[in-house]
Amino acid sequence: MIPLGGLGEIGKNMMALECGDDIIVVDCGVQFPEEGMLGVDLIIPDISYLRERAARVRAILITHGHEDHIGALPFILPHLPVPVYAPKLAHGLISVKLQEHRAARGAQVEAIEPGVAYRFGENFQATWFRVCHSIPDAMGLAIATPLGMVIHTGDFKIDHTPVDGRTIDLAFLARHGAEGVLLLFSDSTYAEVPGYTLSEQVVGEALDRAIGDAPGRVMVATFASLISRMQQVIQAAQRHHRKVSLVGRSMVDNVNMAAAMGYLTLPPGILLPLRETRQLPPEEVVLLTTGSQGEPTSALVRIANGDHRDVRVMAGDTVIISATPIPGNELLVSRTIDNLLRQGAEVLYDRTALVHVHGHGSREELKMMLSLVRPRHFVPVHGEYRHLVAHAKLAWELGVDPSRIFVLEDGDVLELSPDGGKVVETVPAGPIYLDGLSTHDTGSQVLSDRRALSKDGVVVVILPLDQPNGHPVKPRIVSSGFMDPPETGQLFLELAEGLGRLLADDPTLALHQENVMTKVRETAREFLYNKTRRQPMIIPVVVEV
Amino acid sequence: MIPLGGLGEIGKNMMALECGDDIIVVDCGVQFPEEGMLGVDLIIPDISYLRERAARVRAILITHGHEDHIGALPFILPHLPVPVYAPKLAHGLISVKLQEHRAARGAQVEAIEPGVAYRFGENFQATWFRVCHSIPDAMGLAIATPLGMVIHTGDFKIDHTPVDGRTIDLAFLARHGAEGVLLLFSDSTYAEVPGYTLSEQVVGEALDRAIGDAPGRVMVATFASLISRMQQVIQAAQRHHRKVSLVGRSMVDNVNMAAAMGYLTLPPGILLPLRETRQLPPEEVVLLTTGSQGEPTSALVRIANGDHRDVRVMAGDTVIISATPIPGNELLVSRTIDNLLRQGAEVLYDRTALVHVHGHGSREELKMMLSLVRPRHFVPVHGEYRHLVAHAKLAWELGVDPSRIFVLEDGDVLELSPDGGKVVETVPAGPIYLDGLSTHDTGSQVLSDRRALSKDGVVVVILPLDQPNGHPVKPRIVSSGFMDPPETGQLFLELAEGLGRLLADDPTLALHQENVMTKVRETAREFLYNKTRRQPMIIPVVVEV
Repeated sequence: MIPLGGLGEIGKNMMALECGDDIIVVDCGVQFPEEGMLGVDLIIPDISYLRERAARVRAILITHGHEDHIGALPFILPHLPVPVYAPKLAHGLISVKLQEHRAARGAQVEAIEPGVAYRFGENFQATWFRVCHSIPDAMGLAIATPLGMVIHTGDFKIDHTPVDGRTIDLAFLARHGAEGVLLLFSDSTYAEVPGYTLSEQVVGEALDRAIGDAPGRVMVATFASLISRMQQVIQAAQRHHRKVSLVGRSMVDNVNMAAAMGYLTLPPGILLPLRETRQLPPEEVVLLTTGSQGEPTSALVRIANGDHRDVRVMAGDTVIISATPIPGNELLVSRTIDNLLRQGAEVLYDRTALVHVHGHGSREELKMMLSLVRPRHFVPVHGEYRHLVAHAKLAWELGVDPSRIFVLEDGDVLELSPDGGKVVETVPAGPIYLDGLSTHDTGSQVLSDRRALSKDGVVVVILPLDQPNGHPVKPRIVSSGFMDPPETGQLFLELAEGLGRLLADDPTLALHQENVMTKVRETAREFLYNKTRRQPMIIPVVVEV
Repeated sequence: MIPLGGLGEIGKNMMALECGDDIIVVDCGVQFPEEGMLGVDLIIPDISYLRERAARVRAILITHGHEDHIGALPFILPHLPVPVYAPKLAHGLISVKLQEHRAARGAQVEAIEPGVAYRFGENFQATWFRVCHSIPDAMGLAIATPLGMVIHTGDFKIDHTPVDGRTIDLAFLARHGAEGVLLLFSDSTYAEVPGYTLSEQVVGEALDRAIGDAPGRVMVATFASLISRMQQVIQAAQRHHRKVSLVGRSMVDNVNMAAAMGYLTLPPGILLPLRETRQLPPEEVVLLTTGSQGEPTSALVRIANGDHRDVRVMAGDTVIISATPIPGNELLVSRTIDNLLRQGAEVLYDRTALVHVHGHGSREELKMMLSLVRPRHFVPVHGEYRHLVAHAKLAWELGVDPSRIFVLEDGDVLELSPDGGKVVETVPAGPIYLDGLSTHDTGSQVLSDRRALSKDGVVVVILPLDQPNGHPVKPRIVSSGFMDPPETGQLFLELAEGLGRLLADDPTLALHQENVMTKVRETAREFLYNKTRRQPMIIPVVVEV
């Protein structure tokens, strides 16, 4: 097996399993760039290993419909046209997604049923089984291979009272555990967190109380894919005689889709267009909105900044942020909360109220999984490296032979044989950055240039070269992001004079453009650093006229 | 009073108190820029209000020696040459700092004694009192004014068993509370956190156990200013027959300074130069290092990346990160932990072991402060806006009249009179960014240009203008951070041709440089966006030859 994403990082989950002539792939996710990450739109896995073996890839098997498990499909399928198998809700989400990307239209996407065995090539037979997670229809995979049974948990937690009543199929896992499992891949996201993840029931009660107690309008921000949370908000609204209005395009789309597919129960008349809520007294209104991660263009952030077209914060508003910041988003979320408070709203968030539980099992749940499955080999998946290490230690404590526990990172090729397992090689699995219509890998000069430009800006030195005699005339200097124009006036005058003298003094220099450019770059760098203690990028351009 | 920094943000604490003809300033701190923040070195408060009234500013009063309370002095004192009064350790730190900055040498810095009243002008008399915090000699201020007593807690927590045995002077606070306090400024950093902050004793025990149990070498990373933590590590090392070596310049400097001033007790022979530790078996070595915040150039990060000159991670190493990530540093710290684990170290950190307590009081301690001081007016200080709001609510719950609680932000002028208080105006207090030898404020074009450059790079379009007939000849195009050169070749050729045609078609255009530049910018922007879906910064330059 080869993890191509999601090991040693959170996001862009993807893993290849290879046996004989067959390859299957589990999940195909994206990662979102950190705030202000050099203009990168999305990050996807590197599939060069799979493209070279495309004829042997039988299918992509999807565990659930989150972006970090399905989001790369539109970009990968055009280069790896294989069928996709997914649980029903994920199937719906993928279909919508592929429609939006012309290159990926026409891909074959099949909806699977849990408990049914699907054959992929000679060597794989996969059965999906239910798990609990923060989106309906989340599943794990039991994959029968000639060497033995492989279990992949997908993202999971153990919740005995989930909103949709569909609990994790512990009996299925226990049965396989009793029959013998060759290898377990298990979700490591919360392997550092002691105890159990609280049930969604607790959040439901807290939301109900908060909405019931609120003196005026309530806004609830959550993930647009967290359908169980929307259900809880809708139930609480109804109980307290409030109408619900949806704010933010992805919230509207997802509620409609989930309701149409039967994953969300909407009491008649509970939803109201935003405009009509203005006729209601505030204490009869709940707004369900996107923006729980402080995403700059989301509805909640625009509301917090006072520049949303339709919604302004009013005295008496209560805002509930029903989510936890994803690592890296802490400052964005914190700024959003501050701005809502500045506008006079009451704000409930994870630090001050029990308005969110996450979708991943904590340490006691991970132990339960290991105890039920009793795997011969164990590979922790989904998590930063430290999460994988913490999970590996847990498995060791529970009696898995340490020589059969493998902490892998993206690209590591683990080979299992009847004698045991070992990492035999590493294949390319670095991040691929989507940027407009093209892509970069980590080595890209473009990204390192952008990083440099963001520090001290750019200074362009233009040397018009007088063609007849080959002598350069006085250089022209422009800049951006370096210093304010009043400061640069005198500075650039001096630099231009200095460069002019330099070129006049050495007439042979101009004969070689490369030499001129190197000399100009060095001279300008030294001059500017001495005068300003800054190191802008310097671009010399020789223009022949 | 006017907060000039530290309200609605963490860092660069500074506050002005004005009465009659006198102004005094409490603290003068810096803020550190977020990771990759556009080349900014440091952020300092805007003191234009004070500079306009420089003759009336009597002194800057320092509460303790942390950078967010003293770090701006070298940059502010040259523009506001007033005496500085500080507790002994802060005095030492400030003196070292001012020596390093030529412009600030010769400033008058006085060491104060707690419990002694110092007079500043006609209207202020200040007495420092001890508090507990994560640096020795941390103090609050009791400032007698004609209107009544003002108490400023500085940064504080209530620890009955601190490492240096010097507890917070609760009796002093209670006495003033009984006599009547006009106004309390109190630290809000942890106003969201329920309960009590654990005593440093607990960390001491955990460190002792961890160092005692470690099979090999131990590295402890902490803040270079957290002298009590160094003391705990040194004590534990001695108890377990280990020598301590210091790694990282600021760690060496601070240990030497603290030992020389009597704030750190070093058993004879406990310190060993790094080189000599190589002769010892690993289980007799403790390295005390900087880098607990994942700072890219720190010792621990270089060790984690395997590029430290003297220290490599060995099997059996235990690394203890005795700190909590400051908001915004989470990803840096997380990457450091991952890299240490990858190299085979055991890593103990705040999520998995009790190896750190922070320096600020939690909600129960804040309540204790409010109960003892029983202020007539209350202003929460030091914190993001949501921390200030949470603290204000606490004060309300404890019976402070809500009309006398003021949630202020930097620049708000609160005027207190015998009738009560109100915010009468707002003065400039935006952040000032230090960048090389000059400064920017938030409105700076330089910073917004850098942000733009970091997204999609820059494209420079050079139009040589043939002087005799005024016609521009074919443009020359260069770029950086936009796309890789093989991709731009054909693209820029097409763009140059398009621009050439544009200029040839409209001979009048060239008569006005401004028109040419606008037209070129618009055309290039549209062309490049359509072809690449990117929006680089476009710099047109007309060069007359």
